[in-house]
Amino acid sequence: MLKQQIKELLLKVRAESPLIHQITNYVTVNDCANITLAVGASPVMADDIAEVADITSISKALAINIGTLNARTIEAMLLAGQTANKVGVPVVIDPVGVGASKLRNDTIKTLLKAVRPAVLRGNASEISFIAGIDSNTKGVDVSENDKKNTLEKNIEIAKSCAIKHSCVVAMTGIIDIITDGGKPICIENGHASMSKITGTGCMCSALVASFCGATTDYLLAATAGVMSMGIAGELAASAKGTGSQRTGIIDA
Amino acid sequence: MLKQQIKELLLKVRAESPLIHQITNYVTVNDCANITLAVGASPVMADDIAEVADITSISKALAINIGTLNARTIEAMLLAGQTANKVGVPVVIDPVGVGASKLRNDTIKTLLKAVRPAVLRGNASEISFIAGIDSNTKGVDVSENDKKNTLEKNIEIAKSCAIKHSCVVAMTGIIDIITDGGKPICIENGHASMSKITGTGCMCSALVASFCGATTDYLLAATAGVMSMGIAGELAASAKGTGSQRTGIIDA
Amino acid sequence: MLKQQIKELLLKVRAESPLIHQITNYVTVNDCANITLAVGASPVMADDIAEVADITSISKALAINIGTLNARTIEAMLLAGQTANKVGVPVVIDPVGVGASKLRNDTIKTLLKAVRPAVLRGNASEISFIAGIDSNTKGVDVSENDKKNTLEKNIEIAKSCAIKHSCVVAMTGIIDIITDGGKPICIENGHASMSKITGTGCMCSALVASFCGATTDYLLAATAGVMSMGIAGELAASAKGTGSQRTGIIDA
Repeated sequence: MLKQQIKELLLKVRAESPLIHQITNYVTVNDCANITLAVGASPVMADDIAEVADITSISKALAINIGTLNARTIEAMLLAGQTANKVGVPVVIDPVGVGASKLRNDTIKTLLKAVRPAVLRGNASEISFIAGIDSNTKGVDVSENDKKNTLEKNIEIAKSCAIKHSCVVAMTGIIDIITDGGKPICIENGHASMSKITGTGCMCSALVASFCGATTDYLLAATAGVMSMGIAGELAASAKGTGSQRTGIIDA
Repeated sequence: MLKQQIKELLLKVRAESPLIHQITNYVTVNDCANITLAVGASPVMADDIAEVADITSISKALAINIGTLNARTIEAMLLAGQTANKVGVPVVIDPVGVGASKLRNDTIKTLLKAVRPAVLRGNASEISFIAGIDSNTKGVDVSENDKKNTLEKNIEIAKSCAIKHSCVVAMTGIIDIITDGGKPICIENGHASMSKITGTGCMCSALVASFCGATTDYLLAATAGVMSMGIAGELAASAKGTGSQRTGIIDA
Repeated sequence: MLKQQIKELLLKVRAESPLIHQITNYVTVNDCANITLAVGASPVMADDIAEVADITSISKALAINIGTLNARTIEAMLLAGQTANKVGVPVVIDPVGVGASKLRNDTIKTLLKAVRPAVLRGNASEISFIAGIDSNTKGVDVSENDKKNTLEKNIEIAKSCAIKHSCVVAMTGIIDIITDGGKPICIENGHASMSKITGTGCMCSALVASFCGATTDYLLAATAGVMSMGIAGELAASAKGTGSQRTGIIDA
């Protein structure tokens, strides 16, 4: 039944082609744009404070990714996020590398105080940091310590984070966990090789935002984004998004 | 005969390897660099106000793309464009997403007041906006309304825009229109799937600039750029530019 | 024996997965991240002055690339480089396009005065400029004049540059030269087509930094980086880094 709902949501994304405003990092931005197009949505990247309010207002979802943040873009993230909250556009936040620097920690704290996310998408270390639980992030990858977490531990962290921030949490890893604080959805379809390609996390967040652009059921949107990433990762690695890829995703 | 002229121009680009200064967006910048190399020209990306005058002065063409503009790069675009006009370097302007935000609208207005372009390359919505005709841009893609324009309507808009700005206009879409205000050249060789790959417009502008770097016949250069994009789009999607790809383009 | 040492170093990189802080350009940043992952290291891109000291301090090597520098990132490069020197993290500097603008020249002079590099990686024009020998850079590619240098001339330039800056110099071209001022190591395994793909130089520097992250023998690290680039270039061009590619590199 979940599969059927996801399939229907994907058809809706393809039919409506929602505009997805993304303030993201310059490492994976091209992949994020292409995966957004591949799923059927329409990406627009804009990060100047002088235009983000305009762009968010005409968009169906906003994705904020702090992968290569700077003083200029942090201000734009804040304004875009607040605008989104005001006009009812769902916000997906990807706290890339939070825990690795004071700037990232402060930025996420400020963002979460000022902006109400629909979905938080991160790895176990990042979600743990946000949940307020000690974690040990090494750069942008999940730390060795956090890799040893049991599934039960991770579910507990994801739930606590979702409740704390009244949003959906998508904690991705070998087993992905999606929860709004209630019964979690667990997915096991990633590839070990995916951690050897940069930006799979970022692309997953772009997919989640794309699905959020076509529904108000953000738990479903997050699940659809994470599930399609398993296949989309392969596709994005093999070539840039074309029609056949989207068929691949829809068949999943 | 046009085919023969384009073939000769391509051989000239390959022989001279003109340096093409590009101030572009960080979404598609890698593709722009690779397509420039694939066609035989040499890309240099530089967008700091402290160096753009130096870089433009040693280049054979300048491409300005407002895809991810910000206060800092807008100043650099202006200075580079004015320097180009002063030293006789042709300027290609790609008004990505104009109409989607006040910042983009104001920037294009300021640019076109201060800088004389050799070629304006955009989709129907963007060219309409610049021609001063009402249009309705959704993000960076052509709007649904503008998709319904007849070919005649689009030709009229492209011509009026070319006359207004005394430059060549390349309006790309299902049928591409290139005109300097006179009899238009119409090309139909794009692929529907190309709108599902980000940056095909940006890459097209990079190609137009590459050809502008080897001739003063900007109508020919724009036509060559747009024509080679049909093939180049496929090539760029399949892999990064190599010798065999350039052969593919020359055979087209 | 050198081959054996490189193989062992590569195994060490794969075992330790050193975090490599990269302040690089937005043209090739995605390729740099993927090649770093492909070789077994872990990339983190961060260029805001408010976080570079934090990020460098938890990293095993720092790569500074001036490909698309600006006032903001120049300050971050300086602080990151000085922090690296203070905490004993090796610094790889890639002086992309030095000679093409006053800003690039001034930046490299300032950087080399304030920061002690472990390795300088550039083409013949760039290394010549830094060695204080006249050269004539065209954009970011090696100039036609410098292409005519004999191997002996290039070796002399590389050695003089290495002695002047007390570091290892890796001058890449048709024949790559690696030297710490003493007997040079010459490698001939690049592909002519590689100059037609943007970022092969940048990726080579990322590889050198990745190897520097697992040894204090920077001459060996630079050699390993340059040697693996011959194969890595192909790999990066064909697809994004996966396990089989890393096998390819290790077998080299």
